[in-house]
Amino acid sequence: MLRQEMHEFVVNTRGRGFYEITEPVAAWLRGLHARNGLLTLHLRHTSASLLIQENADPEVRRDLERFFSRLAPDGDALFQHTAEGEDDMPAHIRTALTTVNVSIPVADSCLALGTWQGIYVWEHRHDPHGRRVAAHFIGE
Amino acid sequence: MLRQEMHEFVVNTRGRGFYEITEPVAAWLRGLHARNGLLTLHLRHTSASLLIQENADPEVRRDLERFFSRLAPDGDALFQHTAEGEDDMPAHIRTALTTVNVSIPVADSCLALGTWQGIYVWEHRHDPHGRRVAAHFIGE
Amino acid sequence: MLRQEMHEFVVNTRGRGFYEITEPVAAWLRGLHARNGLLTLHLRHTSASLLIQENADPEVRRDLERFFSRLAPDGDALFQHTAEGEDDMPAHIRTALTTVNVSIPVADSCLALGTWQGIYVWEHRHDPHGRRVAAHFIGE
Repeated sequence: MLRQEMHEFVVNTRGRGFYEITEPVAAWLRGLHARNGLLTLHLRHTSASLLIQENADPEVRRDLERFFSRLAPDGDALFQHTAEGEDDMPAHIRTALTTVNVSIPVADSCLALGTWQGIYVWEHRHDPHGRRVAAHFIGE
Repeated sequence: MLRQEMHEFVVNTRGRGFYEITEPVAAWLRGLHARNGLLTLHLRHTSASLLIQENADPEVRRDLERFFSRLAPDGDALFQHTAEGEDDMPAHIRTALTTVNVSIPVADSCLALGTWQGIYVWEHRHDPHGRRVAAHFIGE
Repeated sequence: MLRQEMHEFVVNTRGRGFYEITEPVAAWLRGLHARNGLLTLHLRHTSASLLIQENADPEVRRDLERFFSRLAPDGDALFQHTAEGEDDMPAHIRTALTTVNVSIPVADSCLALGTWQGIYVWEHRHDPHGRRVAAHFIGE
């Protein structure tokens, strides 16, 4: 019998960087006794991202930061939307280049993530923020 | 009782730029009396994107244009696929760097978008196009 | 009557490049007699992508390769995570810049892809890999 469940996660960030949410999401699904279905997460912001990336060597995430900082540098003279600070427009750019939605099947009571995949909120602003992630599960 | 509904939106663009579709999508959901569920939109093209971005200061969208125009300039000598014009391959690049799919929960009869999030068709070609967006709702 | 179905596709890549999976996915849906619903694909890796792009002129895909090779070159001195080779960190970057999830409506027994849209596994590593794609269908 198919059913759906919804939740909102709040992730309190401490500035630019990666905040893994794989375990709280998996714990929510375990609490629902979700066996098979589809999980969707939607980040309700325009200056942070949801990213599925390697959860092993943390140097991967530091290199992601280095790359995106070079690609869309804080304070780039190209940008006109600067009222909220030098990191505001680069944050919107990073969000546009990545994503705010992920949909992942749930099979045999587990998220169908690969061995090395973790789900991260990627904060692009330097200041701390409370980031809200809407979650939806449909299945059995 | 779970159900699903489908629709196709057509967005007539007037050349490169952002065309907000948040309200027509919300109106469709209201017409369905959708209360809780999952909305998915899929843009059926390879030279335009669906983008969830800030709906307040329009300078954000102009800066997005500036950034992507610098990153993948029209007429870049790197590109071999030029038969359809100087903006054709940059349009494919922009689409690859962003997305053509979004999935957003619907909670208490509202899309779970953040305060500053709008849904846009981002046209990457200079000529006007009729862009089709397939919509799917599942829920109650 | 709504139902869901799940599957895992394995795509054996022969190194960096595009591997179209549109037809095996469509064949799976035909085998299910799927009429209307939502298909979700999730690639279970962090150094390859799922990409919906033009399936006509193969030069488009070669230009995508050229562009991403220029944007995140193999062996870029910026990267510290190099233990697995010069193409490892560029592969993670390409994955972050694109996506590992797609959700596409199914309408009247067909994927709601546009005329020129194909679904590709985009391998970013030079060595061959077995890439797993989790598939989920919900609908009728």
